Amino acid sequence: MVGSVGNGLANLADKPAPLPEELDPKKIIDSLPSEAESNGIEEKETQGSEIEKKKREIVLGRNVHTTCFSIVEPEADDELTGEREAYMASVLARYRRSLVERTKHHLGYPYNLDFDYGALSQLQHFSINNLGDPFIESNYGVHSRQFEVGVLDWFARLWELEKTEYWGYITNCGTEGNLHGILVGREVFSDGILYASKESHYSVFKAARMYRMDCVKVETLISGEIDCMDFEKKLLQNKDKPAIINVNIGTTVKGAVDDLDLVIKTLENCGFKDRFYIHCDGALFGLMMPFVKRAPKVSFKKPIGSVSVSGHKFVGCPMPCGVQITRLEHINALSSNVEYLASRDATIMGSRNGHAPIFLWYTLNRKGYRGFQKEVQKCLRNAHYLKDRLKEAGIGAMLNELSSTVVFERPKDEEFVRRWQLACEGNIAHVVVMPNVTIEKLDNFLSELVQMRSGWYGEEQGKPPCIAKDVGTDNCLCGSHDK
Amino acid sequence: MVGSVGNGLANLADKPAPLPEELDPKKIIDSLPSEAESNGIEEKETQGSEIEKKKREIVLGRNVHTTCFSIVEPEADDELTGEREAYMASVLARYRRSLVERTKHHLGYPYNLDFDYGALSQLQHFSINNLGDPFIESNYGVHSRQFEVGVLDWFARLWELEKTEYWGYITNCGTEGNLHGILVGREVFSDGILYASKESHYSVFKAARMYRMDCVKVETLISGEIDCMDFEKKLLQNKDKPAIINVNIGTTVKGAVDDLDLVIKTLENCGFKDRFYIHCDGALFGLMMPFVKRAPKVSFKKPIGSVSVSGHKFVGCPMPCGVQITRLEHINALSSNVEYLASRDATIMGSRNGHAPIFLWYTLNRKGYRGFQKEVQKCLRNAHYLKDRLKEAGIGAMLNELSSTVVFERPKDEEFVRRWQLACEGNIAHVVVMPNVTIEKLDNFLSELVQMRSGWYGEEQGKPPCIAKDVGTDNCLCGSHDK
Repeated sequence: MVGSVGNGLANLADKPAPLPEELDPKKIIDSLPSEAESNGIEEKETQGSEIEKKKREIVLGRNVHTTCFSIVEPEADDELTGEREAYMASVLARYRRSLVERTKHHLGYPYNLDFDYGALSQLQHFSINNLGDPFIESNYGVHSRQFEVGVLDWFARLWELEKTEYWGYITNCGTEGNLHGILVGREVFSDGILYASKESHYSVFKAARMYRMDCVKVETLISGEIDCMDFEKKLLQNKDKPAIINVNIGTTVKGAVDDLDLVIKTLENCGFKDRFYIHCDGALFGLMMPFVKRAPKVSFKKPIGSVSVSGHKFVGCPMPCGVQITRLEHINALSSNVEYLASRDATIMGSRNGHAPIFLWYTLNRKGYRGFQKEVQKCLRNAHYLKDRLKEAGIGAMLNELSSTVVFERPKDEEFVRRWQLACEGNIAHVVVMPNVTIEKLDNFLSELVQMRSGWYGEEQGKPPCIAKDVGTDNCLCGSHDK
Repeated sequence: MVGSVGNGLANLADKPAPLPEELDPKKIIDSLPSEAESNGIEEKETQGSEIEKKKREIVLGRNVHTTCFSIVEPEADDELTGEREAYMASVLARYRRSLVERTKHHLGYPYNLDFDYGALSQLQHFSINNLGDPFIESNYGVHSRQFEVGVLDWFARLWELEKTEYWGYITNCGTEGNLHGILVGREVFSDGILYASKESHYSVFKAARMYRMDCVKVETLISGEIDCMDFEKKLLQNKDKPAIINVNIGTTVKGAVDDLDLVIKTLENCGFKDRFYIHCDGALFGLMMPFVKRAPKVSFKKPIGSVSVSGHKFVGCPMPCGVQITRLEHINALSSNVEYLASRDATIMGSRNGHAPIFLWYTLNRKGYRGFQKEVQKCLRNAHYLKDRLKEAGIGAMLNELSSTVVFERPKDEEFVRRWQLACEGNIAHVVVMPNVTIEKLDNFLSELVQMRSGWYGEEQGKPPCIAKDVGTDNCLCGSHDK
C-alpha cells in the first residue's frame, strides 16, 4: 500500500468527488436548524425521541440525548445567505444566557466561578499543547511549559519539596491526579494493597479497578474522616503486603480532612515503616488548608509520595484542571522513553491542555499567597454563617472545622435541588462555600429554602428525615435528637 | 473534629492573621519580576539553575525548569501602582508573539492550527464542566451536554452506529480514547491479551502496563501497517485467550492504516469468532478516511467495539480533545453508580472540559461533511506535492496511499528540526499536511531544506543516511538503492 496515489489524486484535483451516498446531507439529516430554533434550550425534541427514551432508561437521570443541538449539514448557499452564521449565533447567545443564570444559582459544587481571564482571550487563537513531560521540551513548539513549570514550582514550594526533588504536571482534573498518584504508588509497590476511606472520591475506587489492585475500604467517623482504629485493624489483617493509602484532604461530600499524622503513626505502629506510599487527594482543600490557622500540614517533609489538587475549584478556571506533585525519584518507576516526542512521558495523558497552566499562572500571580489567604478566610466565615442560619431555622447541619462545606438535610423538592445545583447523597446535601458565594447569595438561598420547606413538612406530610447518622446527633434537628 | 470553628473564625474576621512564616513573600521568593523581564522568553535563568541542570540530566532533552515564568508574591501596593498588571501583560504579549512565530513554522504534528473561534470567546468566562456521563444530567448546571451529544451523534452517524446503540464522550485527547477503548475491551474479556502493531501509539502500551494486561507486539510492513501474517502466528500461539486488538487508523509516524477487514478475517480464520474486541485508534485519519475515495471503511457494521479520534488534529481546537464512541452494551461492563453526581460514570475522567465540545460543534456545523471533504482533498494533494518535490530534490520520501503524512530522511541539523517542529524517529522525520499547511509554506520549507542540506553532505561530511528499512528501497534515495 506504499506509494503512488497519483491517479486518484489527479482526479480529485480536477473535479471534487461526489459525496458518498451515505454522507448525502439529505439522507442523513432528520432535523433542520429551524426546528432547533423553535424550541428552548431544554425542550427540543428530535424525531424518534420516544424510542430513544425507552432504550436509554437503563441509565440513570434525565436523558439529554434528545435535547441536544444537532449538527446539520450546511446548505450549499449558506455562506452567501449567512443563515448558518445567524443560526449558530442565536444558539450561542441563548446558551450564554442560560450559563449566566445557572452560574448565578450555583451552590453545590466546589467551583470558584468568579474569575476574569479577559487578558488571556488573545491566546484562544492558538493550539497550545504541552505534549508529554513538562520538564522536557518536545519538538512541538506551541506549548506553555514556561507557565506550567512556574505553577508547579509554586505548588512544590507550598508543599515543601525542593525544585530539584519534585516532578509534577498540570492534569485535566482531580481524577487524573488520583489516577496518577495511585499508579505511582502501585509502581513503587507492585503488590501493594490500596486503602481508602469509604468516603473517598469515587475515582480512587475506579483506579483500583483499572489498575487491578486489591482495595480495602476503611470506615469513617461521623465527621467523614478516616477511622484510624478501623485502619489499624485492616492493616494488621494484611501485614505481609505493602500499603498504598489515599488520604483525603477534604472529602467530596463532607469536606472532612483525614488526619495525615495519625495515618502515618498508624502505619508505623503496625510495622509498615518503609513499606507504604501515601497519596494525598487534596482536590479542594489542598489549596485552602495551607492558609487555615491550626490546620495540620500537608508537606513532603512527611513521608508522603504525592499530592494532587484541582485547579478549577478554589483557584477557578474555565475548564477542569489540576496539579499533581510527586517525588522525582518515584517517576523513574513509571516512565518509558518515547522517541517520537523526544520526551519521557510519565503523565497519564500524552497531549495536554496548554491553556490551563496559563490560567493558573495568571491567578496565582495576581492573588499570591496573601490573596488566597484572604479568600480562604472569607469562605470559612461565610460557611460558618450558613451553618448557623440553617440551624437557627431548625434545619440539621454540620460544618467540619477545616472546611467550607456545609452539610445539611436534603431538600425534599428535586426542582429546588436542581435549581441550586446541590450535590446530594442519601438524606444529606451540601453547599460548598467558594469565593464567589457571597452572604447575599446565601441569604437568597436560605430564605427560599426556609419558605419552601415550610410546605414540605407538617401534620399531613410527615417529619423531616433524621440525619443523625450522617452528621451526628448534635447536628441533627429532626426532633428526636433536638436538645 | 466536627463542628465549632467559632472563636477561630471570629478572630479571623476581626483581624487577618499574619502570614505564616514559611509563606512570607520575602523568604520564599528568590527571583523578582524585573529579572524575568530583563531576558527573553527562552533565556531566563534563575538562581541555582546550574545545580538543577545537573540533577535533571537524568531526563532527556532540554530542561525548561530553569526558563520558566516564576510566580512572584505581589507587593502590598501592587494594586495601586499597577506594576503587577504591567509585568503580566508584558509576559503575555511576548508569549503571544512567540506563539505566532511558532505556529507559522509548524509542520511536524498533525494539528490543524487554522481556526477562528472568535464567536466563542464570550464563553471563556464560564466554568463549563461536563461531569460524568454525557447522557445523564448531573446537578451541576454549567455544562455543555447539549453540544457534546450533538457532536457525538454526528460521529456515531459517520461510523454507522444508531443513536440508540452507541455510547461515547468527548475526551481530553487521543490517549484518553485509547485508554478507554482498551479498558472497555478488558472489561468485556477480562483475560484477553492485547495485540497491537509495534508502530501503534505509545499510549496503547502504556494502557497495557496500567491495566496489567498481557500485551503482544505485532510486526509491521514497510508501510507501517500491521503485518497480518505475523498477527496470525501470534494469535495461534495464544488460542486459549480472547484477543483485544488495537487497530491503527493512521499510525503516528507513517500515517499507515491497518487493514481492518484483513484483521477481522485473520481473527475469524484463527478461531476467535466472538472472542475478540477491536478498538480503532483513529487519532488523525479516523476523521479523514471517510472522505477519501477507495478508503476501507471504519464502521460499526463491522464487528468492532470502539473508535476514537482526536478533535484538535484535523478539526482544530485550542486545546487537545477527542471523541470516543463505543457500543452501549459494552458500557455496562464498565460503569458503576455514583450517587454523588447522580450520574453513572463510565468515562475515565470525572470532570470534563465543557468548552471542547462547543469548539467541535462549532466547526462541524460550519464546515459539514462537504467542508471536510474539500479539506481532506486539499491535504492529500499538498502531501503528494511535498513528496514529489522531495524526491525530485534527491531526498528519500514516502507517502502512504490514504495518508497526508510524508515520511522522509531526517534532517541532519537539530536546529532545523526544531525550527520546523518536525517529529523524528531514528533516521526518518515526517511532515503531516494539515489544512493550514499551504503550498507556499511547503515551498518555504523545501527551499530551506534543500539549501541547508547541500551543506550537510559531500566529500568530507559523508553520505545521507540510508532509510530503505523505513521507507522501502523504492523510496530511499541514499545512493545504493537509487534507480
